Amino acid sequence: MIVEMQRGASQTEVDAVIERARGYGFDVQLNRGTDKVVIAILGSDTGRVPTSNFEVLPGVATVTRIMRPYKLASREFRDAPTEVQIGDVAVGGPRIVIMAGPCSIESWEQLSATARHVMACGARVIRGGAYKPRTSPFSFQGLGEQGAEMLRRLHDELGVPVVSEVTDSHQVEQMAHQVDVLQVGARNMQNYTLLRAIGETNKPCMLKRGLSATITEWLQAADYVLAAGTSQVILCERGIRTFEDSTRFTLDVSAVPVIKRQSHLPVIVDPSHAAGHYALVPALARAAVAAGADGLLIEVHPDPPNALSDGIQSLTFSDFARLMGELAVIAQAVGRTL
Amino acid sequence: MIVEMQRGASQTEVDAVIERARGYGFDVQLNRGTDKVVIAILGSDTGRVPTSNFEVLPGVATVTRIMRPYKLASREFRDAPTEVQIGDVAVGGPRIVIMAGPCSIESWEQLSATARHVMACGARVIRGGAYKPRTSPFSFQGLGEQGAEMLRRLHDELGVPVVSEVTDSHQVEQMAHQVDVLQVGARNMQNYTLLRAIGETNKPCMLKRGLSATITEWLQAADYVLAAGTSQVILCERGIRTFEDSTRFTLDVSAVPVIKRQSHLPVIVDPSHAAGHYALVPALARAAVAAGADGLLIEVHPDPPNALSDGIQSLTFSDFARLMGELAVIAQAVGRTL
Amino acid sequence: MIVEMQRGASQTEVDAVIERARGYGFDVQLNRGTDKVVIAILGSDTGRVPTSNFEVLPGVATVTRIMRPYKLASREFRDAPTEVQIGDVAVGGPRIVIMAGPCSIESWEQLSATARHVMACGARVIRGGAYKPRTSPFSFQGLGEQGAEMLRRLHDELGVPVVSEVTDSHQVEQMAHQVDVLQVGARNMQNYTLLRAIGETNKPCMLKRGLSATITEWLQAADYVLAAGTSQVILCERGIRTFEDSTRFTLDVSAVPVIKRQSHLPVIVDPSHAAGHYALVPALARAAVAAGADGLLIEVHPDPPNALSDGIQSLTFSDFARLMGELAVIAQAVGRTL
Amino acid sequence: MIVEMQRGASQTEVDAVIERARGYGFDVQLNRGTDKVVIAILGSDTGRVPTSNFEVLPGVATVTRIMRPYKLASREFRDAPTEVQIGDVAVGGPRIVIMAGPCSIESWEQLSATARHVMACGARVIRGGAYKPRTSPFSFQGLGEQGAEMLRRLHDELGVPVVSEVTDSHQVEQMAHQVDVLQVGARNMQNYTLLRAIGETNKPCMLKRGLSATITEWLQAADYVLAAGTSQVILCERGIRTFEDSTRFTLDVSAVPVIKRQSHLPVIVDPSHAAGHYALVPALARAAVAAGADGLLIEVHPDPPNALSDGIQSLTFSDFARLMGELAVIAQAVGRTL
Repeated sequence: MIVEMQRGASQTEVDAVIERARGYGFDVQLNRGTDKVVIAILGSDTGRVPTSNFEVLPGVATVTRIMRPYKLASREFRDAPTEVQIGDVAVGGPRIVIMAGPCSIESWEQLSATARHVMACGARVIRGGAYKPRTSPFSFQGLGEQGAEMLRRLHDELGVPVVSEVTDSHQVEQMAHQVDVLQVGARNMQNYTLLRAIGETNKPCMLKRGLSATITEWLQAADYVLAAGTSQVILCERGIRTFEDSTRFTLDVSAVPVIKRQSHLPVIVDPSHAAGHYALVPALARAAVAAGADGLLIEVHPDPPNALSDGIQSLTFSDFARLMGELAVIAQAVGRTL
Repeated sequence: MIVEMQRGASQTEVDAVIERARGYGFDVQLNRGTDKVVIAILGSDTGRVPTSNFEVLPGVATVTRIMRPYKLASREFRDAPTEVQIGDVAVGGPRIVIMAGPCSIESWEQLSATARHVMACGARVIRGGAYKPRTSPFSFQGLGEQGAEMLRRLHDELGVPVVSEVTDSHQVEQMAHQVDVLQVGARNMQNYTLLRAIGETNKPCMLKRGLSATITEWLQAADYVLAAGTSQVILCERGIRTFEDSTRFTLDVSAVPVIKRQSHLPVIVDPSHAAGHYALVPALARAAVAAGADGLLIEVHPDPPNALSDGIQSLTFSDFARLMGELAVIAQAVGRTL
Repeated sequence: MIVEMQRGASQTEVDAVIERARGYGFDVQLNRGTDKVVIAILGSDTGRVPTSNFEVLPGVATVTRIMRPYKLASREFRDAPTEVQIGDVAVGGPRIVIMAGPCSIESWEQLSATARHVMACGARVIRGGAYKPRTSPFSFQGLGEQGAEMLRRLHDELGVPVVSEVTDSHQVEQMAHQVDVLQVGARNMQNYTLLRAIGETNKPCMLKRGLSATITEWLQAADYVLAAGTSQVILCERGIRTFEDSTRFTLDVSAVPVIKRQSHLPVIVDPSHAAGHYALVPALARAAVAAGADGLLIEVHPDPPNALSDGIQSLTFSDFARLMGELAVIAQAVGRTL
Repeated sequence: MIVEMQRGASQTEVDAVIERARGYGFDVQLNRGTDKVVIAILGSDTGRVPTSNFEVLPGVATVTRIMRPYKLASREFRDAPTEVQIGDVAVGGPRIVIMAGPCSIESWEQLSATARHVMACGARVIRGGAYKPRTSPFSFQGLGEQGAEMLRRLHDELGVPVVSEVTDSHQVEQMAHQVDVLQVGARNMQNYTLLRAIGETNKPCMLKRGLSATITEWLQAADYVLAAGTSQVILCERGIRTFEDSTRFTLDVSAVPVIKRQSHLPVIVDPSHAAGHYALVPALARAAVAAGADGLLIEVHPDPPNALSDGIQSLTFSDFARLMGELAVIAQAVGRTL
């Protein structure tokens, strides 16, 4: 951390900064410039201390951070890429993992038919929403417990790993028995009680990016899960909120290479929520794979016009089959396979 | 809702739209233009149905909403302004309500000294954080249960209403006994489990705007609380996330007059979190009152440089006293009192 | 356009809306719902009239647009994709066009060496900045007229088309003799005097997206150029401004498929300005091609650490050669060639 | 500037950074931490050098700026507040300056009637658009030269200063004879050719904030004007682009106190363009004055429903009269007068 004092700051004010820094166990180096004093605060974990702890001291002009404010998710903490193991599927290895299924589970028939189809096309993990956080209290809220049971049955009957969203810390313990990956939705990315509860289960966690979270804040949220002792976190980019309104959110495809540089965690992309419209999903899915994503999370529905939620962004069975063909070629072009 | 069909859409496709609309119990009127068909879907609660339920049908080009997607929070639902009663303090009436106190409760001494000071200056509700959601898992997380107990003691000893944040549905039942207003933080604005749990207590709820929530989504979140049967919701604007980085968030002061036009709920402003720096707080506080806010939520600390959280945005005792003097004059200028 | 009247709007107010609509030559259809009147305004060019012309009338509640507000750039106006011809290079056809070169032209040696290298790697158009709009008046502003002359010499000696930015309407006439494509930079996307002047030259125009322009506004800006009589406009996505700060801008890769659905104009991507860092450029370039872009605009410099502008986002010669190899494979995967 | 080297950076790499810094004439101080080297680059004008000039060097991890990148507009350059003199009206002094008039000049009658009314209410500068940059080429583009002549006539007949927008460097010389303040619109904030041309006239310049410009970039744009030798720049906040769509733009009222801390230039607010709707203008105008703005720019029209542009955001004569009464009281509350 670099603390720049105001012009004319007193020695007492400079000393107060130094004392606080030493109090945290950090080293200090003083630079007396021609017209102001600059104090470098050095140490391997200065990232843990908010800059405002220094900004608040009298005589301080600005504080700039050098260490990143996250730790466990960083490349500095662990350089080798982490592979998250979901049953016998590894996310973050050479094979790109396609996860697909309906937005909401509506019935056993709908879920199992979709699962069978997407598995036949090459998907290796099934997604399905049991607890659905919806913007309006008057919309369909998911089958809840009953839906979660269907996911367990799917896992048992088809031997396929399943991923589903957990929306409250109350649900974590039970859901940990019903699904293979506990998903944290974008709206809960900073629900720290939930993050801690999931971390403690030791189940793989899929952490979606908050719709207005910077990549730094997203990795800090990952730190919450990792701090509970697990290393099994998959990051999922799903679009951020911007002024552009021709798509539901703006897919931040750059997040993929940025994460690859800054973190050891695997990162996948959800083109369905980002686009908000089925016609745009294939282009975004291809872009994500070309950019280096470790997997995709795609919504598929046997009959989108009659879906109970998000039908407009779901692919039909035939759309999905065609897309998988395209993705296989792109994967190869970037030296990977589906 | 207005459904515009694609050019050349077939009669069967038009009929499918009409049938779906009638299935929801809506009226339908057909407009055959020179080159396309436009279907107006009419009814008093079309706002409950997502536009995508029609967009997903074959032959549909666009769907535009006329009804707003929230209901219970709207002026259409209730025209007269709602006053939320906190003990003998009314929020939304002619007196502007100043709520002040420390960001985090650090000790009984810190809390009670701050409370006594701000009350002497004219604040009528005390704020204090017991459970603190922090961006980093390595930051101070609040005193929790112990802090909540101090708030109850404060209420009992000083006879002043207290407001504090609830971060998880688990805490709701207990906190409802300890504080007078249950606050939902910006990061939890779409934590629907929490919203419902608070609504069911019938305690006043202070609902902070999510950092990337539109005003429409914020009012939809209010609908979640209101749908549980209460009418006691206070909205709190606290800055939104934008590209501008010279303030912590961008205070959307326009939200005040917009809310006043669209909703019957009272709206207050938190200038401390928006600004992120004490030197900017007074200007934003004055602007909020001038724009018509029903109250303010302000962070005050006896010794900001040694605060355990957010010291940089806290006012000192003397800063707060001076600000209250300024606000009293502005309040008068807009025909109100503190 | 759909005009929804307020509840209780008078017949006189309804009539005023109808009269205004008829005054523009539009058809009108009236829907009397249970509690409000809705007026559909129909015609093939209602997109030309701002919605506020109706919102401003007494008794009007909301006005929603059905027609898009751009016309000449739309698929409705021209369904077949436009190919823009730059010498013998066609942009918007089956071959993906790579345009590359230095950010700023610094000398004839720098420009020609870079051009020869990127052409050898497969680039078919050379970029180079002569007039450089810089955020600070104290930064290098380009060689100006001298740089433009070097571009003409490059064209003449190597027989390669060149593209360069025009920053003021004064420069248009001269630059039209010196370069093959006149580029409008992001900061000038709504400099309408400049757009019209370029349109009148009949030279191909490369229109970069403004950093906070919606896709709709971008296509309206294209309308300004097209309205001057030309059809030779190439759109260039170069990242938008968002809250995310780990990249210089946020590449909106979704703009590619959105433009393909809404417009007949070709669209290319500039990964260099979006990323702002050379290490991220290859991933974004691959993503753009996979998403369906018709070309790329890439900054390359013989010695980035000593570049006079934007060295941090420039590829070295060897980086560029490697990237071209990767892009050739991705192009094939989407059924195209470089 | 603080340059943090990568872990394991070589001495040669460190030396290259030092050499480059000394080449710019800066001082250098070296901090060898436990695991990395940090280099402080010191000097009174390091703000002129882009950080990327160091980031691009091998072995560099991050570069953080301490000096702000603008100079002439900063408090460091000139501490005392600048008063801009428009005829006998001073902007930036104790009196708050209200500038009002029609969005577009439509006729002499419309302009002069509006001017007489707003002057009678206390406005001291008249605004009126002659050259109108419009998002669509099919909208009314202003009376141009003819409108500018009307402004001169207004000035001559009523003895009131006038302000109007200049949209192209071609118009600057002539407009400098016709109006008292040359306005740069938001879309042209980074049209550097225009900024320089205006700076050279020595006429007061009103510089509107670009719709996606940070405050830092806005002050850098001011530096372009100031660098031409003038000191007569008025900043005008007019709303920024965000995701919120219930207002046309988001008024960043915090910009007022931020500018007051960082710059000596006066700052005014345009509530009309920010709000985009007349019903919201009074609340924003009051907020701006309460926050410390030195003036306001307000659109007024004798007959908004029949205005040729932006009628929806224009106040009627009676609305404006009422607002002026409210503002006088708020001005007094903040120790100023109208």
